[in-house]
Amino acid sequence: MAEVSQEVKEFMKSTIVTDFTKDIQQYNLGPLWEAIPEIMNHTPKPQAQAYLWSDELIKKKMGEAAQIFTPERGGERRAIYFQNPGLTYRQPWGWASTTQTIYAAVQMLLPGEKAPSHRHSQNAMRFISEGTGAYTIVQGQRIFMEEGDFLITPKGLWHGHEHIGTEPMIWMDALDIPTVYAIGGTFFDPYEGGLEEPNIPDNFTEKRYRGGMVRPLGDDKFTVAPLANYKWARTVEGIKGLMEFDPNPHHGFTVEYINPSTGKSANPTLGTRMQHLPKDFHTKALRHTHSTVYQVHQGSGYSVINGVRFDWKKGDYFVVPNWAWYEHVASEDSYLFSVNDLPIMDRFDLEQEQLLEEN
Amino acid sequence: MAEVSQEVKEFMKSTIVTDFTKDIQQYNLGPLWEAIPEIMNHTPKPQAQAYLWSDELIKKKMGEAAQIFTPERGGERRAIYFQNPGLTYRQPWGWASTTQTIYAAVQMLLPGEKAPSHRHSQNAMRFISEGTGAYTIVQGQRIFMEEGDFLITPKGLWHGHEHIGTEPMIWMDALDIPTVYAIGGTFFDPYEGGLEEPNIPDNFTEKRYRGGMVRPLGDDKFTVAPLANYKWARTVEGIKGLMEFDPNPHHGFTVEYINPSTGKSANPTLGTRMQHLPKDFHTKALRHTHSTVYQVHQGSGYSVINGVRFDWKKGDYFVVPNWAWYEHVASEDSYLFSVNDLPIMDRFDLEQEQLLEEN
Amino acid sequence: MAEVSQEVKEFMKSTIVTDFTKDIQQYNLGPLWEAIPEIMNHTPKPQAQAYLWSDELIKKKMGEAAQIFTPERGGERRAIYFQNPGLTYRQPWGWASTTQTIYAAVQMLLPGEKAPSHRHSQNAMRFISEGTGAYTIVQGQRIFMEEGDFLITPKGLWHGHEHIGTEPMIWMDALDIPTVYAIGGTFFDPYEGGLEEPNIPDNFTEKRYRGGMVRPLGDDKFTVAPLANYKWARTVEGIKGLMEFDPNPHHGFTVEYINPSTGKSANPTLGTRMQHLPKDFHTKALRHTHSTVYQVHQGSGYSVINGVRFDWKKGDYFVVPNWAWYEHVASEDSYLFSVNDLPIMDRFDLEQEQLLEEN
Amino acid sequence: MAEVSQEVKEFMKSTIVTDFTKDIQQYNLGPLWEAIPEIMNHTPKPQAQAYLWSDELIKKKMGEAAQIFTPERGGERRAIYFQNPGLTYRQPWGWASTTQTIYAAVQMLLPGEKAPSHRHSQNAMRFISEGTGAYTIVQGQRIFMEEGDFLITPKGLWHGHEHIGTEPMIWMDALDIPTVYAIGGTFFDPYEGGLEEPNIPDNFTEKRYRGGMVRPLGDDKFTVAPLANYKWARTVEGIKGLMEFDPNPHHGFTVEYINPSTGKSANPTLGTRMQHLPKDFHTKALRHTHSTVYQVHQGSGYSVINGVRFDWKKGDYFVVPNWAWYEHVASEDSYLFSVNDLPIMDRFDLEQEQLLEEN
Ligand SMILES: [Fe+2]
Ligand SMILES: [Fe+2]
Ligand SMILES: [Fe+2]
Ligand SMILES: [Fe+2]
Repeated sequence: MAEVSQEVKEFMKSTIVTDFTKDIQQYNLGPLWEAIPEIMNHTPKPQAQAYLWSDELIKKKMGEAAQIFTPERGGERRAIYFQNPGLTYRQPWGWASTTQTIYAAVQMLLPGEKAPSHRHSQNAMRFISEGTGAYTIVQGQRIFMEEGDFLITPKGLWHGHEHIGTEPMIWMDALDIPTVYAIGGTFFDPYEGGLEEPNIPDNFTEKRYRGGMVRPLGDDKFTVAPLANYKWARTVEGIKGLMEFDPNPHHGFTVEYINPSTGKSANPTLGTRMQHLPKDFHTKALRHTHSTVYQVHQGSGYSVINGVRFDWKKGDYFVVPNWAWYEHVASEDSYLFSVNDLPIMDRFDLEQEQLLEEN
Repeated sequence: MAEVSQEVKEFMKSTIVTDFTKDIQQYNLGPLWEAIPEIMNHTPKPQAQAYLWSDELIKKKMGEAAQIFTPERGGERRAIYFQNPGLTYRQPWGWASTTQTIYAAVQMLLPGEKAPSHRHSQNAMRFISEGTGAYTIVQGQRIFMEEGDFLITPKGLWHGHEHIGTEPMIWMDALDIPTVYAIGGTFFDPYEGGLEEPNIPDNFTEKRYRGGMVRPLGDDKFTVAPLANYKWARTVEGIKGLMEFDPNPHHGFTVEYINPSTGKSANPTLGTRMQHLPKDFHTKALRHTHSTVYQVHQGSGYSVINGVRFDWKKGDYFVVPNWAWYEHVASEDSYLFSVNDLPIMDRFDLEQEQLLEEN
Repeated sequence: MAEVSQEVKEFMKSTIVTDFTKDIQQYNLGPLWEAIPEIMNHTPKPQAQAYLWSDELIKKKMGEAAQIFTPERGGERRAIYFQNPGLTYRQPWGWASTTQTIYAAVQMLLPGEKAPSHRHSQNAMRFISEGTGAYTIVQGQRIFMEEGDFLITPKGLWHGHEHIGTEPMIWMDALDIPTVYAIGGTFFDPYEGGLEEPNIPDNFTEKRYRGGMVRPLGDDKFTVAPLANYKWARTVEGIKGLMEFDPNPHHGFTVEYINPSTGKSANPTLGTRMQHLPKDFHTKALRHTHSTVYQVHQGSGYSVINGVRFDWKKGDYFVVPNWAWYEHVASEDSYLFSVNDLPIMDRFDLEQEQLLEEN
Repeated sequence: MAEVSQEVKEFMKSTIVTDFTKDIQQYNLGPLWEAIPEIMNHTPKPQAQAYLWSDELIKKKMGEAAQIFTPERGGERRAIYFQNPGLTYRQPWGWASTTQTIYAAVQMLLPGEKAPSHRHSQNAMRFISEGTGAYTIVQGQRIFMEEGDFLITPKGLWHGHEHIGTEPMIWMDALDIPTVYAIGGTFFDPYEGGLEEPNIPDNFTEKRYRGGMVRPLGDDKFTVAPLANYKWARTVEGIKGLMEFDPNPHHGFTVEYINPSTGKSANPTLGTRMQHLPKDFHTKALRHTHSTVYQVHQGSGYSVINGVRFDWKKGDYFVVPNWAWYEHVASEDSYLFSVNDLPIMDRFDLEQEQLLEEN
């Protein structure tokens, strides 16, 4: 709303106005003139807060959860999600919001455990922090997961997990749960019979897409997940290629995971990136409409988010809310995995960005 | 989530589980196993409720507002919005939610009044209930509004109003405010100098688009609002055309307003329709992911929404939440204007529909 | 090719070069250095010529054809096409090229005659010059044709004609025959049993689309021909709307026919327009990559095409080849129907345009 | 056209008909009833012929050309193109047609030679047969070429070449010259000053895209050539991935080169593939609307095209016209590079395919 005079401001606080507001609210009517200044801001005013969850906290609580929730006693997925403290008022369960739009969690699967198959209208992704030997089975294809791998299970695909290895596996999950909840589009189906059986060769898509920009013949029509697992070694190779040239001052050496049938983000609603910051690299500050959840995959350093410093190290998670100024500093060679809602902003043509040339 | 045994259900209610939940919540962590059953429903469970606001109530409260809020005393827009009672917990101001995603309001402009120009990242539309003589000015074009006209002001366009006629004007506003608020993309700019001055001939676009499916040369590139005002007479003509054939059993005789440069909905995120139900017509029931706000433009009748009957007549507004079964019955020849969020559902590929062949 | 020296020019004409060219040609090999200057021009060098066919000629020859080709003696369609004199070398039958890419013809159907149904991979359109009482049947829908109507039968749709009236009917046909022939994509199927029987109400689509930019509910998905007949009265109404403002200096008052499900050209590969030039209006010159075939629907005047004057009057047809400078002058109030290949150019991103501000 | 009776056939051959045809042709009018049977076939009747040019012939003639056309004596590009014998009637120069739509040629650049920069509205690609040490410079980026590399220079990009190595280089060129010529959209500009100077690091794009499906940040908007050189090693890696599973019975192990910003063909109008056929592999027969030019990169074998056997070995080129049945047999492990016009067919929705399950 445009600037208003002192007189108007006082009138708006007068009893006559507040009484009228109360009066109409009992009829489920609302006064636009009151609401506009608070819900139509000049620029986004995130309710989400910048926040960091430490590796130690996560490990400790996940360890306790592993004691309590055994396969016998229930709980389909042993996942603890990151609840943004600014969004707890969302009912119920804070809509499991890590940012305004994104749910992020850490999940642990122990050797011998199974997580039954299901499907839903939310888009999901997985980034593997630790361990080996478990597979996810997506639409009949077993995909074995290793550290640094990035996997997608977009909306509508059946998926479940099983651990046939020997050490605990830990990964990050992210979905567009808060967005789908906000607009009222949740559909969910359990798979009859628990875990789906394989009916496609293991690791089928990652082998077929080994060639990079040469694509298997016949994959030219749109598919939601032609490539299901983006292997760590290949991601590193991409970053190495970028390192032959100057880094991007705001992003260092960053790649994004894409869907080879569209050239768009690997996941329809979630942008995902791997960012390499060499030791002592300091990114220039920027802000944008979209929000981001980071997982520190390697290294350590700190980020300044809206003027507050957050120190991070391997295993930590942190949030950069939308329209928050931020910059990263690496104390050692670091790799930051991140998930953002840029594809959602793009669907509504809402993305804006401001770059600071000098921090 | 899949069905769980009684034993598991009890375990999930045990102290060990609830204590753990409380414990992790203090660290801003959340238990997925608790949240899933409540936020990942099998089908959409709308928080929004079916609700009806009567013409008398609206007129009465709007009359009172006109006494209190004069141009001198402030309030850019004299609009009272319809607050869905199921969504009041959304902070602040219930996000001005009429449905999960849509804001709807009634606005009154008195002879001599002006509403200053502004622009915002929300998409807006207007449907004229009563009066004549006011114009809206969109990007320098004055558009005079008459009863039954449908106007759009999609995101990013400057718009203001002025009433140079003699009788009060009343119209319906609808915007995607709750959606844009939920995902954090609000941008808003007041126009310097109050109301924009005209710099394009009055009613320019509606005259140019008089031909229907023959389009002015040069308008082949995408424009967000090539046609700004869809006149009532033309809408009626479209419905008359449909009436030469059988009605649609679920929709009667319904047209939707489209953007001539894309063939898609006139407004990027809001679907809008005019529905004619002849006297005694009874639509077959259906439900779908998208939600709808209705304004009764002419006639009377009732709707059954999830088993509850809502009687309506000219000037009433009512809500059909997402995934609610509904059917309409016209007691006299009726015209229902409606706005829905189908274009939002389509952006996320979330629309599903179920039709009942027999009510 | 870049400018070359005199020495090089002479060398290129030397025996050693011409002998080598002849030598390799016997092995079906060709010298790029010879071909480039002739087939890779700096700007398009149309092989098609500007040309005009007079109403008298067309009527005379069509009258003779009507004597010779009766329904009993054969000939599915009594159509005489306009063969561009610059393209007769194309084998066979000059590819029936009126311009590089477009076939245009005049077709006559006499009372009582039938033209059997068929379908093909070429896109077709019809513009009605004279008569009433015949229908075309497209996918089971009889569409009655009147003077000034514009009809489409895009690729793949069954279509046939029958004349149940009393006076001869004459119309213009245009198809993308030369384009489809050039790239080798011709498919053609005759309809078993001659003329298709109706199974949809007569004139179904034109009645349903009477509302202009309000569209029948349910027509939001892409359809190749949601509206099959664009009536003359509506086209005139569109032009009248434009006439409330200044004419376009290069185009006068021109509308284009569009597909309401896409906002793109009514016909996938053929752009179609109705252009009104008031008495004494003189368009400013322009040229562009696309080519055009005109049919003079009303009035008279002349056009200057690449410096040559072509006088035209009602019933004449003329061609403006691609990249030819042209301007029109109306001696009386005139209406020019035209068909162009701009949608083809757009598919290859080849459209360029130059406007002359002063003739 | 539908089947016609013997009586009609004879009438159509009668003097009255042929005289009428001759008569109207002098006025540049044509009889549709004559032309339809020849230009609107039931299925595509290619004018292009199946044909093979042997490595020996090409090398011999290219050697002679190298003697005659030195940089001093002219000829911007030392390229000999493959003129399809069925398309020589196209004027001028057979439109340099290897198939209906595609130009293919072999080009030789000797050590020390330069080919000046230019740009054009045709899309071009290069596949490297022999040699090393030359670079192509595209929009200021030098790209060094090695055997097996596939390069693109889509429409509108400046490109030139220079050989700074020691051995002759030979590569295949392919462009959409006949298509652009047929529709009349040729634009061509020489670069002022001969060969463009570099202003971007060498081999910039191929290094940046080393990661496969992880893409450099910032490359999410459409670019016509984000990756300019598809290296042989990577192509082989892609094929190796496919070889972990069963071959496609009609295509063996085939990958296609794609544009990472769209997921569509690397070149806007030309599809390009590398096909690996292990020793003794015999593909099942198929035919389709699109046509193909093959270059035998490694190995030997034969193809049966419309019943005629063509034996091939490394360095040979051959054509499969549109709608021709074909199958390949490899006598040793073979790699076939090929270019096709499927993206052109797709633009017109003309692609059809028939597969033979049993040869
Ligand atoms: Fe899931
Ligand atoms: Fe507004
Ligand atoms: Fe036809
Ligand atoms: Fe070139």
